[in-house]
Amino acid sequence: MTIVYAPLAHWAWGGGWAGQLGALDFAGGTVVHISSGFAALALALVIGKRLGYGSQTMSPHNIPLTLLGGVFLIVGWFGFNAGSALAANGLAASAFLVTAVACAAGALTWMSLSWKGGKPNSLGFISGAIAGLVGITPAAGFVNVLGALAIGIVTAVVCYIVLTWRIKKGLDESLDAWAIHGMGGFAGAILTGVFAVAAVGGIGGLIEGNVAQFGIQILDACVAVAYSFAVTFALAWIINKVMGLRVTDDEEYVGLDIAQHGEQLTN
Amino acid sequence: MTIVYAPLAHWAWGGGWAGQLGALDFAGGTVVHISSGFAALALALVIGKRLGYGSQTMSPHNIPLTLLGGVFLIVGWFGFNAGSALAANGLAASAFLVTAVACAAGALTWMSLSWKGGKPNSLGFISGAIAGLVGITPAAGFVNVLGALAIGIVTAVVCYIVLTWRIKKGLDESLDAWAIHGMGGFAGAILTGVFAVAAVGGIGGLIEGNVAQFGIQILDACVAVAYSFAVTFALAWIINKVMGLRVTDDEEYVGLDIAQHGEQLTN
Amino acid sequence: MTIVYAPLAHWAWGGGWAGQLGALDFAGGTVVHISSGFAALALALVIGKRLGYGSQTMSPHNIPLTLLGGVFLIVGWFGFNAGSALAANGLAASAFLVTAVACAAGALTWMSLSWKGGKPNSLGFISGAIAGLVGITPAAGFVNVLGALAIGIVTAVVCYIVLTWRIKKGLDESLDAWAIHGMGGFAGAILTGVFAVAAVGGIGGLIEGNVAQFGIQILDACVAVAYSFAVTFALAWIINKVMGLRVTDDEEYVGLDIAQHGEQLTN
Repeated sequence: MTIVYAPLAHWAWGGGWAGQLGALDFAGGTVVHISSGFAALALALVIGKRLGYGSQTMSPHNIPLTLLGGVFLIVGWFGFNAGSALAANGLAASAFLVTAVACAAGALTWMSLSWKGGKPNSLGFISGAIAGLVGITPAAGFVNVLGALAIGIVTAVVCYIVLTWRIKKGLDESLDAWAIHGMGGFAGAILTGVFAVAAVGGIGGLIEGNVAQFGIQILDACVAVAYSFAVTFALAWIINKVMGLRVTDDEEYVGLDIAQHGEQLTN
Repeated sequence: MTIVYAPLAHWAWGGGWAGQLGALDFAGGTVVHISSGFAALALALVIGKRLGYGSQTMSPHNIPLTLLGGVFLIVGWFGFNAGSALAANGLAASAFLVTAVACAAGALTWMSLSWKGGKPNSLGFISGAIAGLVGITPAAGFVNVLGALAIGIVTAVVCYIVLTWRIKKGLDESLDAWAIHGMGGFAGAILTGVFAVAAVGGIGGLIEGNVAQFGIQILDACVAVAYSFAVTFALAWIINKVMGLRVTDDEEYVGLDIAQHGEQLTN
Repeated sequence: MTIVYAPLAHWAWGGGWAGQLGALDFAGGTVVHISSGFAALALALVIGKRLGYGSQTMSPHNIPLTLLGGVFLIVGWFGFNAGSALAANGLAASAFLVTAVACAAGALTWMSLSWKGGKPNSLGFISGAIAGLVGITPAAGFVNVLGALAIGIVTAVVCYIVLTWRIKKGLDESLDAWAIHGMGGFAGAILTGVFAVAAVGGIGGLIEGNVAQFGIQILDACVAVAYSFAVTFALAWIINKVMGLRVTDDEEYVGLDIAQHGEQLTN
């Protein structure tokens, strides 16, 4: 079992009291998901919308490849979460199990929420699976199966609401890294402080009466959000002013695969 | 090692003598494969053929995706069969090994049987791999490598013959769930009673002189077949009469991906 | 830990002194990669270039499928290398780890070398990953992480140079089995004799002063190269004269998928 002293908070707060915060983060939900998701939001705000966003349909290009990518993420995530036990022991097995449960709960929750015209859709299913995985990442070594079920469901609901709100507001963050990784990571960090049980990882959360840990998780998540968003926004804003961050309109019409990466999918 | 009291038979027969049958089914070949396969047959009979079946060519749409799907099934199956040992022990390793052997034997067998005009084909290869996996599922914790080899070969032969017969009879069961899962599961359940060796799972089969277990396996498989087919047929027949089970002709021409699921493969 | 007496050399040299060579080859780099790669070179020389080679563009057909195939290779390779410990022990874990390191080092090295016009490319990335895996195969149970890093980098450099040279010389070996598997296997066999550390696999290499082992690895690799190339070339040359090895021009224009395998990717 590993109690990670949130490294971002540590660095941001100069190794002071935040460095001794004692936030629970089993497999790096704070440093990976909150950081990347809120950095994505900052970048989306600095760069602005894609050309034609809001007036043209921008559906996912290829559903089978999207699902394949999602499946690879799921498979790799088991190594990520269970591997964070740093041993082939019972805690690793428990982390493996709760990862599967939260993934499945997230997938079914999002699929149900996005059910339209009598039809569930596979993009919602895989989005929810990833949301559930993001939510369970900090909690994987601290919660049991029931906690994982709750975390998977709640995280998927949070991410779905945020994503829907983002679309309504006309904010173009094309991969939804903010809605799923950022807000899912934020929810997961706090929910870890709710559902942690001492029998699994040696420390209990709110449901076991540990209000202090719940407060620490909220503080930890908020510090990571503020730090990642503010620093990324500042850096991106400066780079954008100095040398520009956005491709030209021509490059955008051609598509970044060709203009920036020089790759064609098929020949 | 787990001796599963076939739950379907148990439920169907009211927990009477069938509940104490003692049939061997290591990873759920009876409940998963016999049940689903014979339910598919019942549904195919109630729903009838696709429009144009027999007069139009209906080849598999996309061979690479078919193979990818097959590979995912194979990878997942190792977790399914070896995981049914419910521990990381020698029995799990043995189940893993015989699963690989039966899969390979089935693949090579079907590929050889479907060799036409000097050419093997990849659809036959992957169909045989799945047939071998279906056959070894109930046997995975009870047979050794030689038994697995035999089960992979025999199951693939059985499934291939049934599938060929189905096509000749003009029966449209488009995914061949019956031929591969239903009949493969039926064959596997019985073959478990033939090739079980006491040194692996604590109980021998016909080759070790245990005629009683062989009889139990046949009875178990037949009960599951009868139950799954009869109940599914009855339910489907009633639903079909009351509210209909089949899409309209227009929806069928458009394709179920769009008409029923609202999904497009690529945009 | 397993010291493999290079079976090819053993067979070729009649079980004499070469059979007692004592070359290190943890997971079969000599028999799998050197043999297959130099056999490919011999076949490419006997069969000759594809029609239109050098005058028409022959880009990879489908980058996503190429990457998917590469990912499957990577996943399977972990079983291959770590599994060669023949036990679930520390050596298997070490082999697993160094396999990942060499794969990553190779991928980043090749990507950097093939960076053109400000753009890395994904085909170079996955080619380098495979080159790194080929290089670490014989070394997986004998080197530590630093050795793996060096082997991944050096093997990718060697393979990249050979591949570039092959293209410049107008030699058409379409899958680059020679450049990546043959020359990567050759490099890996020799590098095993450089970076082996006694603390991992019980025997040290050149960096630990074991010059003899270094010499044995060179000899082993050269014997495998000479044997595989010479025997394959002779057999292919004879078969080509007697019954022909090359498809007709018409079959080549249609494409081997259809002409030889009777497979269509999509319908």
